[in-house]
Amino acid sequence: MLASVYYGPHDVRVENVADPQIQEPTDVVVKITHAAICGSDLWFYRGITRPEPGTHTGHELMGIVEEVGREVRSIKKGDRVIAPFFISDGTCDFCRAGLYTSCRHRQSWGIGGNDAGQGEAARVPLADGTLVVVPAEVGDDQQLLKSLLPLTDVMGTGHHCAVCAGVKEGSTVAIIGDGAVGLCGVLAARRLGAARIILFSHHEDRAAIGRAFGATDIVTEQGEEAVNKIMAMSDGGIPHVMECVGSQATFDTAINIARPGGTVGFVGVPAEQPTIGLSRMFGSNIAMRGGVAPVRAYIPELMADILAGKIDPAPVLTMTVNMSGIPDGYSAMDRRTAIKVMVRPLQRAAINTKSGQSGK
Amino acid sequence: MLASVYYGPHDVRVENVADPQIQEPTDVVVKITHAAICGSDLWFYRGITRPEPGTHTGHELMGIVEEVGREVRSIKKGDRVIAPFFISDGTCDFCRAGLYTSCRHRQSWGIGGNDAGQGEAARVPLADGTLVVVPAEVGDDQQLLKSLLPLTDVMGTGHHCAVCAGVKEGSTVAIIGDGAVGLCGVLAARRLGAARIILFSHHEDRAAIGRAFGATDIVTEQGEEAVNKIMAMSDGGIPHVMECVGSQATFDTAINIARPGGTVGFVGVPAEQPTIGLSRMFGSNIAMRGGVAPVRAYIPELMADILAGKIDPAPVLTMTVNMSGIPDGYSAMDRRTAIKVMVRPLQRAAINTKSGQSGK
Repeated sequence: MLASVYYGPHDVRVENVADPQIQEPTDVVVKITHAAICGSDLWFYRGITRPEPGTHTGHELMGIVEEVGREVRSIKKGDRVIAPFFISDGTCDFCRAGLYTSCRHRQSWGIGGNDAGQGEAARVPLADGTLVVVPAEVGDDQQLLKSLLPLTDVMGTGHHCAVCAGVKEGSTVAIIGDGAVGLCGVLAARRLGAARIILFSHHEDRAAIGRAFGATDIVTEQGEEAVNKIMAMSDGGIPHVMECVGSQATFDTAINIARPGGTVGFVGVPAEQPTIGLSRMFGSNIAMRGGVAPVRAYIPELMADILAGKIDPAPVLTMTVNMSGIPDGYSAMDRRTAIKVMVRPLQRAAINTKSGQSGK
Repeated sequence: MLASVYYGPHDVRVENVADPQIQEPTDVVVKITHAAICGSDLWFYRGITRPEPGTHTGHELMGIVEEVGREVRSIKKGDRVIAPFFISDGTCDFCRAGLYTSCRHRQSWGIGGNDAGQGEAARVPLADGTLVVVPAEVGDDQQLLKSLLPLTDVMGTGHHCAVCAGVKEGSTVAIIGDGAVGLCGVLAARRLGAARIILFSHHEDRAAIGRAFGATDIVTEQGEEAVNKIMAMSDGGIPHVMECVGSQATFDTAINIARPGGTVGFVGVPAEQPTIGLSRMFGSNIAMRGGVAPVRAYIPELMADILAGKIDPAPVLTMTVNMSGIPDGYSAMDRRTAIKVMVRPLQRAAINTKSGQSGK
């Protein structure tokens, strides 16, 4: 099959790799129908993190189950499934508490011999604990399937940030980050009942999606200017701040705009090792709660609302590519010409034809 | 009157200063019967912070109201009162939310012309919002009054840490710091129903008080050894960690011993500007919540339990001095020969006699 493979900064290639096979009785094999490129994939694409060359890329996938290991209980051949960005057993104490990302047997896509998301198919370890089955009535409705794809990561991550920030009915919220996670955070905050949603964005196309998702105010300033603007707007700061970037500057801003007694929810990957000083947190009793989102826990409730038409995160997917377009997808996200890229691997026959056409 | 005045590191002097007088109609004047030296006073005593020379010291006081400003509503002459370590109006939005330490009109003892706690008397600004009246039936019971004195700071601060760490019935808790705040934190955690209370202490006298207060385990290790010990004891870390020191090493330990999904409550004053890295917090969804404790909010409930005999923080007060003994009290706390020092200013006549005896 074809899969996307990392070789180095700005060097992601689509190559023929071994087809997935059941290895453990708890595995299934999924034919991937939809995948995505994540903002966090840019950390290795930009050389900030350095995976092993040869690592398969991608951790957001949906597909149809093709083969089922003999100990799998809840998944059957032909099911359409959503896979979150971590593999988890679903049975350990952390999973039972909803913290799937701290599963005692967690595995990562593309690591330790695992297949990854940006490919034609994948072996899914610990299938019962990892996968969520999409109701059969969704069928092949491509519009709905596109809406469900963000459940693999960004919609659940934005929701986790809102939950960690304590957003509830009537809340005033500030969201730092206008990437797919920040925008899904707007949707999540509105879904939880936030009355005022202030989105930090200095890209008009992203701000427009943010407004459509429920943002009531857009702040285009950054750094100290943004802090001053928020203080002028808010009479003491924002009680619920959502950090959806992960950089030193955005963590600092998040803490500095929080209202005394407020909470900063954080889900931006701190790949550049930011640190936070404790003086303001201490002096103003500002809490921080967040981390790598246990999106598996949130898929059922969020999927129900997507299928009911209450929320629709699909607009964050602004570009679609097939397998051979994956490198272009990375490049577009790196240059910020796409917010988030959907990958629709072709049927194998079609891929083979295309490979043949390109002379490979 | 006599009051304690800061001149520089290791230089605190007891001097004659101006008697307090009503300045604003919301003031009262309190004759101080009991005061204390705080662990946080050691930050200036050790030269880590640098107040203006001439600053009056002390922020923990109890006494009898001698004069009452004409707009004071809830306090009357002769009342015995407890003053927390911050002055607050009691009416602003933050005070109404219980966050008295972020009061929009907050003032500090000994700053901006205010009297301080380690003296014979003090003008108390914003008396209605700041003071809590002790029930008359307590009378002059010195044992009970000693038990109430920690409500001015350390008992409320330990309680705040437990609340911020999310301690509840059945919790497993680790408390870093065996000073007065950490020990009161043990008492607070037990009061909130914690089932297992692990106290970090490498001073046997302090560990003994900790055990008497409810600690079930004592960890004498520090740093990485302590982390390893906790991991061996706990199968994944501690869900509720209470940081009661404020140093870089103790913040690091607190985050490293927290269980995934757990919370670090923090009340140790971060005077040395510690920073925290976000990697473990992010990867394991560890939250931090805490800060300067709004002890004013907690005095009523904690006082009720002290008067009912349910908790008694008095054992943290291991040394008592009069006015002239205040420098010795600082020295004893600095050398760790005292956990916490109670100051019992003499009646004025007696002080005058003593001053006369020493030839001043």
